[in-house]
Formats: sequence, structure tokens, C-alpha cells
Amino acid sequence: MEKRSGLQRGVGVALWRQIADGIRHGIATGLADANGRLPPESRLAERFGVNRHTVRAAISALAHEGVLQSEQGRGTYVRRQKRLVYPIGERTRFSAGLHDQARETRSEMMSAMIEPAREPIASALGLEAGARSIRIESLGTADGVPVSRATSWFDAERFPGIADIYATTGSITEALAACGVADYRRASTGIEARHADEVDRQELRLAPGAIVIVTRALNADLSGTPIQYSVTRFPADRVELVVGTGRAAV
Amino acid sequence: MEKRSGLQRGVGVALWRQIADGIRHGIATGLADANGRLPPESRLAERFGVNRHTVRAAISALAHEGVLQSEQGRGTYVRRQKRLVYPIGERTRFSAGLHDQARETRSEMMSAMIEPAREPIASALGLEAGARSIRIESLGTADGVPVSRATSWFDAERFPGIADIYATTGSITEALAACGVADYRRASTGIEARHADEVDRQELRLAPGAIVIVTRALNADLSGTPIQYSVTRFPADRVELVVGTGRAAV
Repeated sequence: MEKRSGLQRGVGVALWRQIADGIRHGIATGLADANGRLPPESRLAERFGVNRHTVRAAISALAHEGVLQSEQGRGTYVRRQKRLVYPIGERTRFSAGLHDQARETRSEMMSAMIEPAREPIASALGLEAGARSIRIESLGTADGVPVSRATSWFDAERFPGIADIYATTGSITEALAACGVADYRRASTGIEARHADEVDRQELRLAPGAIVIVTRALNADLSGTPIQYSVTRFPADRVELVVGTGRAAV
Repeated sequence: MEKRSGLQRGVGVALWRQIADGIRHGIATGLADANGRLPPESRLAERFGVNRHTVRAAISALAHEGVLQSEQGRGTYVRRQKRLVYPIGERTRFSAGLHDQARETRSEMMSAMIEPAREPIASALGLEAGARSIRIESLGTADGVPVSRATSWFDAERFPGIADIYATTGSITEALAACGVADYRRASTGIEARHADEVDRQELRLAPGAIVIVTRALNADLSGTPIQYSVTRFPADRVELVVGTGRAAV
């Protein structure tokens, strides 16, 4: 049988991935002690019925993702991550939303291309199916850690130069302003959650079993004309969303 | 070593749970064919390196959860679920939000108790730490399928009879009205996602590896005084949230 899917690798080959997932689940259900310390590798190995190398590989993956932290001579700890709070509202902007929660926030364009507008993007942007759209992939980071991966579509006729300006400024807001849209509003945001796929894992540096919150957002100019449709994936271990006045009452 | 945690059962004992999780991941990454049909049990067994009984147990769990559907003589299919769209806004109400998407929506009180208000609930509701609060557990269903599990807290001094009225009417809105709150607003909603824990799985009828979207919401009366703090878990395979004008532009 061909070995090519993520599934095959996940269950058949890389046992450490399953163990990483098991540890992730365990953290949520009391595996660590009150100080956030995990049981020693030998006990984890016994618990999962695997050898210590496998446990070490799993811990290493979770450390890479930022879930765990190994401290020399003291053991492995669950990193008490303070999740970034990403506000969703009429005035949703990537940089403005996060700038007071990290020393440095960046939005970097990874790629841009022209493609025929497909559904549901065409309808959302009010374009004919097959009309030219500009598709931009971008990565948002906070202090160097990936916190969002976005795909945005724009009308290529109305915003021909938007990718170039965005690549230079790192700001969609500035790029839209340069294209004559002085201000815009979030019209609607759909929110769902799923397991990270292969691309999410690579771009957002996530281990198998990680969850992403996915938003589908439509922005409109002040006349109400849709200008941007975006799908954004946020790592659920690093980001929470908040709707309404300021921070959530948590 | 003691065998008591969900982790132990999840990885050590119940192999079918891992396979269920593997199939779930697989569905997201192309395991099913274009018609949504899974490979036959024998091939899944080969792929995962387990016997057919284990595969059958995994499929059965996912069918129970509503992810898969076995059709006599035709095979096992991924159920094309239309997710419910749950609107989050100033006027968020459980029944009003879903009533046009299901034949019958219900909110049922599972339990109610008096308990000292702890953080962050005390601060959110403007109560002294340790003041008496009423805690209500409820389950929301749409056409008999669980779609939300909520825990809500109220000030026990201000709303002494709220649990009884809610138990009778199945409506928080009506219970609040009977307690003198004619109208209220959603002040803020925090949104995160995580794997379902044991209680989520039981109450929401989910298989291992399922994801829940968790909202933390604060409602306030029209004078702005907080009246209800709620934590609600939505199965991510059955529900998506939407913020803004009507439906998301999806």
C-alpha cells in the first residue's frame, strides 16, 4: 500500500507523533503536576508503552511548537503561555489588534498571484465567477512566533497594485489606502475550528494534533462595497479571539 | 502504574480511539474519495496496522458522533454535515440564533447549584470573592443532536429563583425576564478552541480527538450591570460561529 498521506505517516510510521498528541491531550487532563512539570521520560515511556527515544522525540516536537519547555536538570514543563487576544470587530486590523501584546508584530507577504475568482470568493466580493482576483498569502508573527496564516482575495481590476504595496509596507490597511480606500469595516466573520493541516503545521510551526481556529472574513469599504475576503488560521494554543468591548471577561 | 487518566485509556488501552482519531485526521486530508466514501475496513485495517474489529469500533464511534454514516452494502461515508451557524452579537440568544436552522431547538437544564463565586466569575459579575452564585449546567440540542454545553453563573442574591424558572421554561431569556431583567446585551465574548475533555465527550456525544469551540461570554442588563457569565462548548464539527451582519460570507 502506498505510503503518502499524512494519515499514514501519523499513525503507521511516526509513533512519536501519536505520543506527542497523547501528551498534548494529557496536559489538558492533568498529566502535569501543580507546577506544570511532566512526569520523567522513563515514566512517560512506561505509560505510553514506547521507548524513551520516542518520548524524547515527542517532547522535542512539542517544545519546538512552544507547548513544552525542558529545563536543564529540572525536567520538562508545560509553558504557561499567555495567549494573544485577537479582537474581532468592525475595526479589525492585524497590527492594531496585537501591538500592545508583543514587542514586535509583523505581517509578511509570502506570495501573491492572479487567479480566476472561484466561489465562495466571487460572490463574496461581488465579482463574476472567473473574473481576475489577486490572491495574497501572508504570515502574521508576534515576537517571531507565527500567530496567523491568512489568504486574502481582492478584485484585480480595482486593486491592481495592492500586492506590491503590501509587500513593501507589510500592512493591508496602508496598501488599501494607497489604492484609494481610506477606511474599511469588517462586515462579517465566520469562525470555525479544525485540526491543523500539513500547510498549517509547516507555516505556523505546529506539531501533529494542533488545533487552528479559522476565520472567514469579509471587509467592505465605507460605501458597503466588499473589498477583501480572507481566510485566516490562528493556532488555538497561541491565540484566542474576542468579540465586543475590549477584552473578554476572562 | 495506576490506570485512571483519559490519557492512559486513550493511548494505552483503547487502540480504536487512536484509529478513530486517525480516521478523523484522514478525512481532513483526503482519505475519503470524491463521493465521500472511505476505503473498505480491510484496507483501513492494513493502513493502520490493526485488525478489522478495531477499525469497526473506531468507525462505530465516529458514526455515533455523526461524522460517518455506514450504508448497507455500499460502504462507509463521510456525512456531509451542514454545520449550524451560531450568531454572536449584542443580541445573542440560544434559541433565536438557531431556530431557523433546525426543526426543533432545545436548551435543557442539567443541574443547578449554589456555590461561592470564584475568579474569574466573581470579578466578571462584580461580586465579592466567595459571594453566593448560582451555577447552572445546560445542554443545547438541535433536532436531538447536542450542539452546545453551557455553564452559567448568576448572582444568587439578585436572581434567587432563576434556576427553577429556567428548568420550567428552558429559556434563560424568560427566566431573566421573570426576575425583572426585561432585556440584556452581550457585553463581550472570548473564543478559543481545544480538544474535547471527558465531560464534553459524554455530554456532547463526541469521539476522542473531537474539537470544541469554547466561548466565555458576559451578558449585562441595559444599565450595563453584568448579570450572567457563561462558558459554552460547541462541537466544532457541528457548529460554527458568526460575528456581524447575518451570515458569514462563506
